[in-house]
Amino acid sequence: LSETLRLGLEKAEKFAFELYTAAGLEPEKAATVARLQVLTDGLGRSTHGLAMAPLYLAEIAKGEMSKQGQPDIVRDFGEGVTAVWDGNYLPGLWLVDLAIGKLMPRARQFGMAAMAIRKSHHIGCLAALAKGAADEGLIVQIHNSDPAGQRVAPYGGRKALLSPNPYAFAYPGEHHPVLIDQCASITTTSMTRQKVAAGEEFPEPWMLDAQGQPSTDPRVLEHGEPRGSIQLVGGASYGHKGFGLSLATEALSQGLSGHGRFDAPKRWGSNVFVQLIDPAHFAGLDAFHSQMDDLAKRCRSNPPIDPAQPVRLPGDQAAKRLAAAQAQGIELPQSTWGALCAWADQLKVSVPTF
Amino acid sequence: LSETLRLGLEKAEKFAFELYTAAGLEPEKAATVARLQVLTDGLGRSTHGLAMAPLYLAEIAKGEMSKQGQPDIVRDFGEGVTAVWDGNYLPGLWLVDLAIGKLMPRARQFGMAAMAIRKSHHIGCLAALAKGAADEGLIVQIHNSDPAGQRVAPYGGRKALLSPNPYAFAYPGEHHPVLIDQCASITTTSMTRQKVAAGEEFPEPWMLDAQGQPSTDPRVLEHGEPRGSIQLVGGASYGHKGFGLSLATEALSQGLSGHGRFDAPKRWGSNVFVQLIDPAHFAGLDAFHSQMDDLAKRCRSNPPIDPAQPVRLPGDQAAKRLAAAQAQGIELPQSTWGALCAWADQLKVSVPTF
Repeated sequence: LSETLRLGLEKAEKFAFELYTAAGLEPEKAATVARLQVLTDGLGRSTHGLAMAPLYLAEIAKGEMSKQGQPDIVRDFGEGVTAVWDGNYLPGLWLVDLAIGKLMPRARQFGMAAMAIRKSHHIGCLAALAKGAADEGLIVQIHNSDPAGQRVAPYGGRKALLSPNPYAFAYPGEHHPVLIDQCASITTTSMTRQKVAAGEEFPEPWMLDAQGQPSTDPRVLEHGEPRGSIQLVGGASYGHKGFGLSLATEALSQGLSGHGRFDAPKRWGSNVFVQLIDPAHFAGLDAFHSQMDDLAKRCRSNPPIDPAQPVRLPGDQAAKRLAAAQAQGIELPQSTWGALCAWADQLKVSVPTF
Repeated sequence: LSETLRLGLEKAEKFAFELYTAAGLEPEKAATVARLQVLTDGLGRSTHGLAMAPLYLAEIAKGEMSKQGQPDIVRDFGEGVTAVWDGNYLPGLWLVDLAIGKLMPRARQFGMAAMAIRKSHHIGCLAALAKGAADEGLIVQIHNSDPAGQRVAPYGGRKALLSPNPYAFAYPGEHHPVLIDQCASITTTSMTRQKVAAGEEFPEPWMLDAQGQPSTDPRVLEHGEPRGSIQLVGGASYGHKGFGLSLATEALSQGLSGHGRFDAPKRWGSNVFVQLIDPAHFAGLDAFHSQMDDLAKRCRSNPPIDPAQPVRLPGDQAAKRLAAAQAQGIELPQSTWGALCAWADQLKVSVPTF
C-alpha cells in the first residue's frame, strides 16, 4: 500500500479529463476539475487531489454531482461588488474557479468583491483554487462548509453538528504566494479516514467520543455507535477559538448564501464564500510586498526550535513540491491508481503508460 | 486586591470622559473612548475596559497618544469600496469607530466596504467596536496587529516576532449579535500580565521559553532573560494554524495599510483592517437570520459534555453581563479604581460617589 507511482502532470491531467468526460461531465468542467486536482497533487495536498476523482466519478454516476449546466444567479452584482449563486450541485472546483474569474474584474475596479455560493458540490483543495488569483497579485479568501455534514460539535457540546469548515487565505509573496489553507477543527474528515484505513491512532486526542471525552481513536467519527466528532481547534482547553472560526465560516457561506443547515440538505455539497481584495486599491501592491516579503524573511530567519526544521511559511513547501512535480511528475499511491484504473476500465478510457 | 466596586454606567462614562478631557483629549474623542471602554467593562472584557484608562492617560501625558486632529487620508474611497488612513497615533477606539461610521453607507450601497488604518493607537476591545454595526444588521470584521509588538514566535521558531493579532467577527443574532473576538495566540498580553501580577502559572503550557520549550510560566514573556513568547493557537502540535491566522491579520492590517514591521516602529500602536458586509446585498437579512438563528438554537440545545455548562455562543455571556451592568453598574477591581483615583487627583477631576 505504501508503494507509489509517478505520473507526469500533462498525462495525469489528460487521464482525469478523459475519465470525467467519459462519465458525462461537459468538457469545460472536466478540464477545470482535472487541472485543479492535478495541481492539488502537485502542491502535495494528496487527500484532495486525484484521490478524490473516484469519489467524484461515483457521485456523477449516482446523479449527485451535476454534469452540465450553469449556476443560477440568485442575486446579481448590479452596481455593487457582491453576488449570490445557486451552484445546482455542479462540480465545486469548476464553480469556484468560475466565480473567481467573475470577481477579478470587480475587485480590480472597486478594490474588493465577494460571492456566496449555495449548493455547490465539493470544492476540493482551497489552496489550489486560491493560487491563481494570488499569483496575479490579489488576496483571496475562501470559506467553505457542508451543511449536510455533521462532524464537529459546538464547543462544550458532544453531538456533531458542524463540518470541519476550511478557510483559505492566499496573498502574493516574493517568489510564490503565501497559501494558508486550514480548517476550524484540529484535523479533517479525509485525514481521519486515512488513519482508520491505516489502522492508526492520532498522536494526540484530536477526536471526541460520543460522551464528549477526548480520544485518539479515529474510528469514533464514522464507526462509533453513537458517533463522536472531530475536536475544534483549541480542543478541550480553548476550543471556543475553533468554534468562533467555525461560526464565522457558517455565517459567510450559509448565512449570506441563504441556504444551509436550516434546510437540512442530505446531499454531499458545499456552501462557499469567496472574496478577492486588490492591494492596488489600498496602499499599493509594492507597499504590500515591502511589508509582507520583509515579514516572510524575518519568519524564515527566526532561530528554529529544532535546528533541522527551519521556519517556513504556508505555501513554501507547496511551491517546492510543485516544482518537483513539474520536473518529475506527481506521486500517486497504489490505492488511488487502482481506483482510477477501475473507473477507466468501466468508462472505457485508456490508461496512460509510464 | 480581589475586592471590587460597582459603578453605574453613566457615572463611569462621565468620570472617564472628564479624565480624558482633563488630560487634553478633544471632547469628541474623549466621549467615544469613555463610552466604548465602559461598554467593554459592561460586556465583561475587563482587561480592556477602564483598566486600560490609566495606561492611555500615561500615553497621553507622554505625548505617545495624540490628543487632537484627524487621520490623514492615504487613499480615499473614490468610486470604490476601500480606503487607507494614517491614524497619527490618535486614540484607536475613536479612530475605528469613526472608520466604521464611514464604511456603513458604502457597505449599504455596494454590499461591502473596508478600510486599512496605519499608526492608530491601541484599539481596545474589538467586540465593543464591532457591536454597534452588528446591532444594525451588518457583519463586522476587525483585524488588528501592533507592528511594534513582538510577543509571539512564528511556528517552529523561538524568537518573538509577531503580536497576538486579535480578530473580531460580529454578526446579527436573534436577541443580540454573535460577537467573536479572539487572537491568533493562545492567550493575550493582558492575561499574561494578570497572571504575573497574581503570581500564578497558566494551567497548561501556553508560553514558550527562550529556547522554544513549552512553559506554564507567564514571566517568560516580559521578565525572562532572554525573553520567551506566547504560543500560537494550536501550540506545539498544530501551531501552524495559529501562524496562518496571524499572517492573515498581518497582511490585512500591515500589508494593505503599507506600514508595519518593515518600518520598525518603536511606539505602542495598532494597525487595523475593518470590513463591513451587508447581508441585504447577498441573500438578504431575513435569509441570514433564518440560517444563523436556527444554527444558534442547534448549538445552544446541543447536549453538553458537562450538564452544568450548556453550550453558549460567543456574545451570549457578554449580552447577559451587559444587561446586568445596565441594571447594577460595572464592577471595577480595587487596583483599577485606585489607579483612576490617582489620575483624578493629578488631573483635578472629581471622583464619583457610589
